[in-house]
Amino acid sequence: MNLSDIYRLIQDDLEEVERSLEAVADVGSPLLAELLRYALKNGGKRIRPSLTLLAGKFCVYDLALLVPMATAVELLHTATLVHDDIVDNSLIRRGKPTVSRAWGENRALLLGDYLFAKAGRLAATTGNLRVIRLFSQALMTISGGELNQTGVTFDLTQAREHYFNWISAKTACLFSTATEAGAILSQASEEIIRALKDYGHNFGMAFQLVDDVLDFTGNEAELGKPVGSDLGEGIVTLPSILFAEANPRDNLIKKVIENRDADTVAHAVEDIRNSQVIGECLALASDFCSRASRALDVLPDNSYRQALLDLATYIVERRR
Amino acid sequence: MNLSDIYRLIQDDLEEVERSLEAVADVGSPLLAELLRYALKNGGKRIRPSLTLLAGKFCVYDLALLVPMATAVELLHTATLVHDDIVDNSLIRRGKPTVSRAWGENRALLLGDYLFAKAGRLAATTGNLRVIRLFSQALMTISGGELNQTGVTFDLTQAREHYFNWISAKTACLFSTATEAGAILSQASEEIIRALKDYGHNFGMAFQLVDDVLDFTGNEAELGKPVGSDLGEGIVTLPSILFAEANPRDNLIKKVIENRDADTVAHAVEDIRNSQVIGECLALASDFCSRASRALDVLPDNSYRQALLDLATYIVERRR
Repeated sequence: MNLSDIYRLIQDDLEEVERSLEAVADVGSPLLAELLRYALKNGGKRIRPSLTLLAGKFCVYDLALLVPMATAVELLHTATLVHDDIVDNSLIRRGKPTVSRAWGENRALLLGDYLFAKAGRLAATTGNLRVIRLFSQALMTISGGELNQTGVTFDLTQAREHYFNWISAKTACLFSTATEAGAILSQASEEIIRALKDYGHNFGMAFQLVDDVLDFTGNEAELGKPVGSDLGEGIVTLPSILFAEANPRDNLIKKVIENRDADTVAHAVEDIRNSQVIGECLALASDFCSRASRALDVLPDNSYRQALLDLATYIVERRR
Repeated sequence: MNLSDIYRLIQDDLEEVERSLEAVADVGSPLLAELLRYALKNGGKRIRPSLTLLAGKFCVYDLALLVPMATAVELLHTATLVHDDIVDNSLIRRGKPTVSRAWGENRALLLGDYLFAKAGRLAATTGNLRVIRLFSQALMTISGGELNQTGVTFDLTQAREHYFNWISAKTACLFSTATEAGAILSQASEEIIRALKDYGHNFGMAFQLVDDVLDFTGNEAELGKPVGSDLGEGIVTLPSILFAEANPRDNLIKKVIENRDADTVAHAVEDIRNSQVIGECLALASDFCSRASRALDVLPDNSYRQALLDLATYIVERRR
């Protein structure tokens, strides 16, 4: 199954979101316009806006509300990527230099701020106070979670718990915001809103787990960035944690944290990639995917529900 | 006239804003809490929240709306300072190390993001969509203006115009947002909203002009940062521009931009401080102050209007 099959039901509306994203770059300042185009033409999969649109399909599907919201969700996502790439010193994303690499950290910082504001401005156009609050709460959770993470020192006894809290804040929160907002804006019942929020959360957890596995098992061409770049930047994700749990005397993570030279990192990536922890991580991702699917049991059995189920399967099976 | 005399009418309510700011740091993560306390206990003059409160005094003064809004305005201001200090590599603000200096640039970046989000969240608690939109628009103007400024190369023929556009975006916009929001939330008439918005804009222009003069004429103890730090960071403000206009063959700004060693900067600061441009800048600040005051002509002649007039006079006469 590929993404365009799943998106088929919302293809025209997703194109409207794309046009709405392009319109974000229609600003007076040529420099700002150029930076916006650079950041927004990023070849992303647009999964979050698709979730908002699909989540809006279970009651009153109102494009006048859903398109700005879906655009806002994608802008917020883009803003966090632009800022994350500063924090992580990332040089490449989706096969091209990061904004901070191409334009400098100062401009990347200010561009991220602008994107946050524009996202908030678009969320406000829905006129829905519940959604507006949800949206600013999401940015609090994401940035607060990332900030908290900067204070976490590696401790194997707490590493798993920290990791799940962290990816819940940095990734799952925006997915659940995307689906919850879509449901709220379509005037769905509280039961359906709750179901789509749960779906979004578990979907997001699975999504991040797979992302973190692909960083070990993918190839550079498909990933659009070097393999093992997390560990190379000192970022400890679940595969490393499970490996350390399984090999308590190996001290691999400690070695990498202390000495991040290319050889040490490459050796660690190789060890982890060839271990059984990759399978364990993917099994955990499948668990979250199942939870996401089960959350949809209360929804009517229609093609939109099927698309959400397919999307959850897709993100666990994807290669990039 | 000192600030506490002017604030007398709103003293209790301003203390409520202060408590509301302190409550922002009541978060689960100890690291985030510590950073929030560090950033918010900054000895600022709280001029922006005072403006929101005073602007709310001309119709239905509703503290339940005005306190969160005044808090939001101060948080947005703090967030922009935290990010500006990263962009400008500033080491000291109000006599203590900047957040980026004390905690590192990454944490400063994420803290700023959190503050933006929290500010938006508080603005949303007013439930007033017009104010919520105004608020996200303000952050777009501020960050977009700063970003645009990074692309401006010094050109004396356009320097004045660029400068006024720049300070309108980076400073006056938040002052006009502060007053306009206060007026809107108190259900004032459109005429009064417009008057208070104009007041805020001109107040903000005067405020920034005086700030830029004090950077040359102040002393380090009062400023809480070294004298001439703008020029030392390569930031060209109105005193430098007027000096360059008056001394076209001196090439002073070009010299400083090309070579920012301490001696060159100190020499330039000394030349500018002792020139007539300081008086000219202050005269321009007074013009904006007069415009701010005249904007209030349509307001009832009461003690709140007088406080706004006094505040405009205060900020032009202030020494820090």
